[in-house]
Amino acid sequence: MANPLLSDRNVEFLLHEVLDTKALLALPAFADHTIETCEMYVQSARKLAREVLYPAYKPMDQAPPALDGGQLRVHPAMHAIYPRLVELGTITATRPPSVGGASLPTCVATLANAYLMAANLSAYGYAGLTTGAARLLESFGTDELRERFMTRMYSGEWTGTMALTEPQAGSSLTDVKTVAKPVENAGHYLVRGSKIFISAGDHDLTENIVHLTLARIEGAPAGIKGVSLFAIPKKRIDPKTGALVSNDVHVAGVIHKIGWRGIASLAINFGEQDDCHGWLVGEPHRGISYMFQMMNEARIMVGLNAVATAAVAYQESLEYAKTRPQGRPLGAKSPESPQVPIIEHADVRRMLLRQKAIVEGGLALVVEAARLQDLSEHATSDDERTRARLLLDLLTPIAKTFPAEKGFESNALAVQIHGGYGYTSEYLPESWLRDQKLNTLHEGTSGIQSMDLLGRKVIAGGGAALRALVDAIEKTIGRAKRAGVPDAWLTRLQGSVTAVGEVTMQLGELGMKGDVDAMMRHSFDYMEMLSIVVVAWQWIVQAAAAKEGLARGASEADRDFYEGKLAAAQYWVSTELPRVGTLGALCRSNEDSYARARATWF
Amino acid sequence: MANPLLSDRNVEFLLHEVLDTKALLALPAFADHTIETCEMYVQSARKLAREVLYPAYKPMDQAPPALDGGQLRVHPAMHAIYPRLVELGTITATRPPSVGGASLPTCVATLANAYLMAANLSAYGYAGLTTGAARLLESFGTDELRERFMTRMYSGEWTGTMALTEPQAGSSLTDVKTVAKPVENAGHYLVRGSKIFISAGDHDLTENIVHLTLARIEGAPAGIKGVSLFAIPKKRIDPKTGALVSNDVHVAGVIHKIGWRGIASLAINFGEQDDCHGWLVGEPHRGISYMFQMMNEARIMVGLNAVATAAVAYQESLEYAKTRPQGRPLGAKSPESPQVPIIEHADVRRMLLRQKAIVEGGLALVVEAARLQDLSEHATSDDERTRARLLLDLLTPIAKTFPAEKGFESNALAVQIHGGYGYTSEYLPESWLRDQKLNTLHEGTSGIQSMDLLGRKVIAGGGAALRALVDAIEKTIGRAKRAGVPDAWLTRLQGSVTAVGEVTMQLGELGMKGDVDAMMRHSFDYMEMLSIVVVAWQWIVQAAAAKEGLARGASEADRDFYEGKLAAAQYWVSTELPRVGTLGALCRSNEDSYARARATWF
Repeated sequence: MANPLLSDRNVEFLLHEVLDTKALLALPAFADHTIETCEMYVQSARKLAREVLYPAYKPMDQAPPALDGGQLRVHPAMHAIYPRLVELGTITATRPPSVGGASLPTCVATLANAYLMAANLSAYGYAGLTTGAARLLESFGTDELRERFMTRMYSGEWTGTMALTEPQAGSSLTDVKTVAKPVENAGHYLVRGSKIFISAGDHDLTENIVHLTLARIEGAPAGIKGVSLFAIPKKRIDPKTGALVSNDVHVAGVIHKIGWRGIASLAINFGEQDDCHGWLVGEPHRGISYMFQMMNEARIMVGLNAVATAAVAYQESLEYAKTRPQGRPLGAKSPESPQVPIIEHADVRRMLLRQKAIVEGGLALVVEAARLQDLSEHATSDDERTRARLLLDLLTPIAKTFPAEKGFESNALAVQIHGGYGYTSEYLPESWLRDQKLNTLHEGTSGIQSMDLLGRKVIAGGGAALRALVDAIEKTIGRAKRAGVPDAWLTRLQGSVTAVGEVTMQLGELGMKGDVDAMMRHSFDYMEMLSIVVVAWQWIVQAAAAKEGLARGASEADRDFYEGKLAAAQYWVSTELPRVGTLGALCRSNEDSYARARATWF
Repeated sequence: MANPLLSDRNVEFLLHEVLDTKALLALPAFADHTIETCEMYVQSARKLAREVLYPAYKPMDQAPPALDGGQLRVHPAMHAIYPRLVELGTITATRPPSVGGASLPTCVATLANAYLMAANLSAYGYAGLTTGAARLLESFGTDELRERFMTRMYSGEWTGTMALTEPQAGSSLTDVKTVAKPVENAGHYLVRGSKIFISAGDHDLTENIVHLTLARIEGAPAGIKGVSLFAIPKKRIDPKTGALVSNDVHVAGVIHKIGWRGIASLAINFGEQDDCHGWLVGEPHRGISYMFQMMNEARIMVGLNAVATAAVAYQESLEYAKTRPQGRPLGAKSPESPQVPIIEHADVRRMLLRQKAIVEGGLALVVEAARLQDLSEHATSDDERTRARLLLDLLTPIAKTFPAEKGFESNALAVQIHGGYGYTSEYLPESWLRDQKLNTLHEGTSGIQSMDLLGRKVIAGGGAALRALVDAIEKTIGRAKRAGVPDAWLTRLQGSVTAVGEVTMQLGELGMKGDVDAMMRHSFDYMEMLSIVVVAWQWIVQAAAAKEGLARGASEADRDFYEGKLAAAQYWVSTELPRVGTLGALCRSNEDSYARARATWF
């Protein structure tokens, strides 16, 4: 069964009716682009996703990369896919022409990437990780390092990874122990240490791989402020022969992941023979701060992946519900009547509409974050860039966590709709459910995102970030009013925004009084509360655009599309927004059950 | 790492401090038992679970049964386990001595089975399914059929299955198409048809398997009222030689399940050569009604399985959280200080306490349902039996659905606590997450349970069932008041009970006016609302028992245990009970987003 991966109509809707793409394209940075060139890029990605990446998804899930004498071999399909991704321009789409890129707005690239990820998240991963690693060199590397590594990564000749985590440290990067010893007059360091969970840490797709690695320079201070960033290639260029020779980087083990099985996660040892050369990127001891400057993008990428993984499963379960006959409507119980497709059962539509609300609400949010990324880099005034950055910083943990957490629920609903068949590996929903679980874990767990949101982001600039969000929502409410979105929905959203403001104020006061524990106790509930509001905002944006579309006079297919948008908006406003009250009360309460619970009580 | 599977202290707590085991054992039906014999049985099951079943869990998950020339071969470990389960008395523990059983109260057997399921749900499945199938023969079979099949099943010589589902029908048993043709003067029928998802439908553990199968007698009326129940053995006894010969029952395919991998789910063909003998059980056309009389037990069994699967993962993640050092407490950020076990982070305790609330709340609920089962069969007065049955019927869909739905969330939290390691098959939480997903699907999906609850159970007897629940809760509130459980908690529970009554009344009125669609629209939300209240009731029962225990003067270990109970009760009352308001409002509202949504809108 062909899977559309994403709704094309919805992608067009975002591009033409929701986002202010025109205003974005008017910025000097995007002078090379028109709406047509943007569309062409999305269409090329869509075609590649459907025709090349998706057919390889199941085979790659079933036969993960395997070690062959210390060298990891990827699935044969990947050898055909990777050059196509390079050819499409995936790695450099958003980068400036100066480094070989196409200067595409990030929000457009996001829509294109959504298809690639929905089709085959592992396949896309090889390209996406390379972009991320090369960007660190683009931003912080010397010309020499950029020349040596970045250009070859952006061209697709070599790939890249991020090597952060160590077995004993996990998320606690403070505890990184990999050591880099300066080599006098050589321009490089000797690195020794072990990393774990390195995605695409080895493969046979390209002849070299560059690991952007966190390590401590010998004698560096303890903690976060003693961690530096290094570029460590799998093979280094022999200065005499110019040939690539081993750089003493070794696969120590393949981790048996439950999803993302087309791309390996590895344990890697650097410097087993004390011959691993690493090149310092930027200044010593600033590695963590460099990583954090790339963090927004990485986290939004995870959010997009979560949306895409939920989307492909939503499309599959929608198709299944439309074609699988079973049972009869309530009150039409004649056993002689034919069975009806299960989409005719209200409870199945409940599950589908919930998936739609999560998938399309999540996609709108991620694309909005990408648009803010574009503005924060390329808007023409300092003021606009600052405002965009502030709001982007605030939305990032939400755009990462909401799709990851609710996407998992959405993926479980896709299994549920398939009934007993969903519980088998003959159908694909179970594999997407496995894939999805990673997204609440990597690039900062949901717990870490929640602490980031409440402990840093909403209180940033003395509340300026939250005010920027409130302004944006109020602007949307204005547009929605004019478009004829029901007043009751807007009142509800407005009320929730007010409630969030009050809760935040109270928690911020607790923090200022020094009771950080009490402030942060319900950070996970706070994340859930604010996520509901932010996604409601995105649904009201879409409802407004739908109303505008209906008012313009729409084809029958478009009317159906817009009515679907309004039904999903209604669902979110009626079912989720009322939870803001209870969640807010919980955040403000002294509820201390798990805060005071001792280890011995469990 | 040894896994305790369940907390022994908690099992003792339920047996001695929560349930009124003494009153139950005073019933004539349980005259053979004392609290000591009950404990001995639980201890034997616990020992078998830990020493024999659990070590085989991972090997069985990794190497599922496979076909070998039309015959399914189970994992070698299973050949050692099955006789031990038979020897323990698992199959007949609760059955009367007249059929070889031990007359153990079901609620005691439930606690024993919880260990077996937590250790290795597939291994237990061979025994549990045999009990279920044999019970149908015990209740509805003739003496001849009981002699021929039931005695051999209860003795463990043969196993049993339930063969309900057909590929074209799924949950819609109305659409069963398997046909049974009477053979004149032979006492049996010739059966022809295909079944799917038959758990333990084939294996090499015993020389025969009896399938309790739904089929239509030729010429039977269409629909539910034309479906009969048959006993169909894999091999039948040749009347001439007395030997077992093929009964034309064939494995048509092995379904590749994502969990419960130690027990196969099969597609089975009956009568490919028109030589499949089936024996009618009970009267013609009453098969569905017989199945439904066993349904409470089957569904509570699923609920127990869900609890057990969540429990074993909770214990694993608790152990991990106590031993895995990572990061430092908020406000103690010196990187020189040692890392702390992750249980020291409040957000990790949040996840653990939520798991505890779900697991121990769910177990208390399932055990209470089992106790009602005991009373509904063995209480000495008609009136007591009727009241127990009414409440049991009401609680059954909840005792099935709550552990299945929230157990899945709980199992996902166990993965989350393990971080990146939880995403690997080197650790077990991912396998329990896979196992758990089945429980929202089999024995009636969560959607079907929700319609059963609202459409039948709460309105049964003109509201008598709901009144029985309210009475039981009020009795608990009385006990809790006397024990010193905080008034605020009791007021909250009382308020929620009132709210549920109002919602139910309004929905019942809609139904009586004939607007069944509007009544049933939010049946899933109704299920969630009532589940929260019912589990809160079980937490208040436990809080009362904990307060009583503290008042008696407890050892330090017991004090910790009781404080943990109070913390979990506080968590549930503060975090979940407030949701009753929003869910109730939703049920009462005209929210019709998915009700009115058309297939073309998605």
